[in-house]
Amino acid sequence: MAATMKDIARRTGLGLATISSYFNGGNVREKNRIKIEEAIEELHYEVNEVARGLKTNATKTVGVVIPELNNVFCAEIISGMEDILRSHGYAAIVCDCRTDKNLEREAVDFLTRKRVDGIINMPVDMTGSHLKEFQRTGKPIVLIDRMIQGLSCDCVLVDNEMAAEKAVTMLVEQEHHKIGLIGGPDEIYTARQRMLGYIKALKKHGIPVDEKLICHGDYTIQGGVQAVEALVKENPDMTAVFVTNYEMTMGAVIGLNEMGVSLPEEISMVGFDNLPFARACRPALTIVSQPTEKIARETAQLMLARLEGKEDLQEPVVRKLQTDIFMGKSIRRQG
Amino acid sequence: MAATMKDIARRTGLGLATISSYFNGGNVREKNRIKIEEAIEELHYEVNEVARGLKTNATKTVGVVIPELNNVFCAEIISGMEDILRSHGYAAIVCDCRTDKNLEREAVDFLTRKRVDGIINMPVDMTGSHLKEFQRTGKPIVLIDRMIQGLSCDCVLVDNEMAAEKAVTMLVEQEHHKIGLIGGPDEIYTARQRMLGYIKALKKHGIPVDEKLICHGDYTIQGGVQAVEALVKENPDMTAVFVTNYEMTMGAVIGLNEMGVSLPEEISMVGFDNLPFARACRPALTIVSQPTEKIARETAQLMLARLEGKEDLQEPVVRKLQTDIFMGKSIRRQG
Repeated sequence: MAATMKDIARRTGLGLATISSYFNGGNVREKNRIKIEEAIEELHYEVNEVARGLKTNATKTVGVVIPELNNVFCAEIISGMEDILRSHGYAAIVCDCRTDKNLEREAVDFLTRKRVDGIINMPVDMTGSHLKEFQRTGKPIVLIDRMIQGLSCDCVLVDNEMAAEKAVTMLVEQEHHKIGLIGGPDEIYTARQRMLGYIKALKKHGIPVDEKLICHGDYTIQGGVQAVEALVKENPDMTAVFVTNYEMTMGAVIGLNEMGVSLPEEISMVGFDNLPFARACRPALTIVSQPTEKIARETAQLMLARLEGKEDLQEPVVRKLQTDIFMGKSIRRQG
Repeated sequence: MAATMKDIARRTGLGLATISSYFNGGNVREKNRIKIEEAIEELHYEVNEVARGLKTNATKTVGVVIPELNNVFCAEIISGMEDILRSHGYAAIVCDCRTDKNLEREAVDFLTRKRVDGIINMPVDMTGSHLKEFQRTGKPIVLIDRMIQGLSCDCVLVDNEMAAEKAVTMLVEQEHHKIGLIGGPDEIYTARQRMLGYIKALKKHGIPVDEKLICHGDYTIQGGVQAVEALVKENPDMTAVFVTNYEMTMGAVIGLNEMGVSLPEEISMVGFDNLPFARACRPALTIVSQPTEKIARETAQLMLARLEGKEDLQEPVVRKLQTDIFMGKSIRRQG
């Protein structure tokens, strides 16, 4: 028969309160901790975490809802967060909502029923309505990459506007004045921020914004292929292009490759994310590089602080991180 | 106050047995199903899945343990499996064990305590000892990509030996006789199979196997960079190289790029996995392409069949899928 907490109490001579405190992560004297762990070992005691979840109302699981697991930026962040959460005894239930608001809502409802202790979300539905009910439980939510106006919770993101402004400024400084933009879907926060940065850089240098040079992609590889083909076809005078996420960057490289447009002789380019891909390109691609490891760490730490009641601040925390530029050879000086 | 199953019984006029059967995925007449769903809607009934897990002993969760979430092959398969599992009401708890046997064992123990209904594993520890205890619970295990000798369970994998043999044969047919191999770690099943295919192709064509041309990488990007640099340096007469996973393929392209060795003029190459990357390379890379979508589908379906008791076969099922070749322009005819 399976051992119970009472068996551990009997074996160690400690009170049930102490044993219970041990299992729920409370304060237990070092001496007692050792005794309990020896008893666990000897009795082959196994915590029934399902039963525990009922009693403590904590399931030691964190739900993670992201648009695409297949998106390398998402995968890198999850991989990093999971390491940290697991080292604190939390499992992550990862739900990939395929950039679909309905699936995203379903995922959050599903996680709510699973009684997860908190939710980490890279949101697709920017009204945040999918999170409202979960928020009423009083459990923590940490948003990644995209803030939601009107939803009061922690958020970790990068300064996307500044990142785009720096990238476009680099192109302008090499005398490019006809710069295409492959942006993301208008309803996505980061896409809007990166677009603002592009416009800001142009305006600062007195370059008019030309709608014909702006293409709204869908953050996928195939979307990047189509966008670059359309831009090249419609703008024979375009000398450079700025692409605003990794998948579309890969797509743009594929598109130029398959059209036989050479980089940087005919088109200069600044891409986004994924250093190894940038290095594998020929010539190496200049890209905006996001601190995925740091995003993962900050997000996991904020969630843990909220779960363990260690975050003194009552107010939501917004952490804005800076991006880097990796200098490849995909920008050619114009004129 | 939250609605209970009794409230639903009262509202619908149906027996508790029927309501219970509905929630546990049993057979319920269409007419009754509609009544129950209307009542759920009206009463805002929410299933407490934690409590349900205790009663039915089913948690409606499947554990997934993989070496690297950051590995695109893994991410694509998980993304596909999750869609199918979720559409059947199962959540996936994904654990990334960082290609570490100890973390892999911890992950399986963790999932066992969480009382998952089944485990899908792309195994790192090829002795399978990490799965033995879970298997004693009688719950299903499905292995992906790698079979474990002596562990009796379902497995979905590709014919890796044949894939490698075909790739190397293509190079031989273009008169390459000094073909380097960037293989994976010897303890990984797929790595051994791909190595066997390489050797088989050479032997069939009477080409001696030269140890100097074989490099054991570690399935990472950085490993691929180092391996290609070592091979090129030590084998001035090498005319082609076969790389056996995606990350090392990307690494090999980076390595050649940064050494200034041109593809295919100086070195011909066949890589592995990831069609978009192959298309983004300049010139486009010839690769072995694995059917990730099909692997995901077969794995999820096998797991569901076991969970729902629909798999008639008592014996473990092994599904071996075939690979494709994507023809890029990275092979040059020799001589």
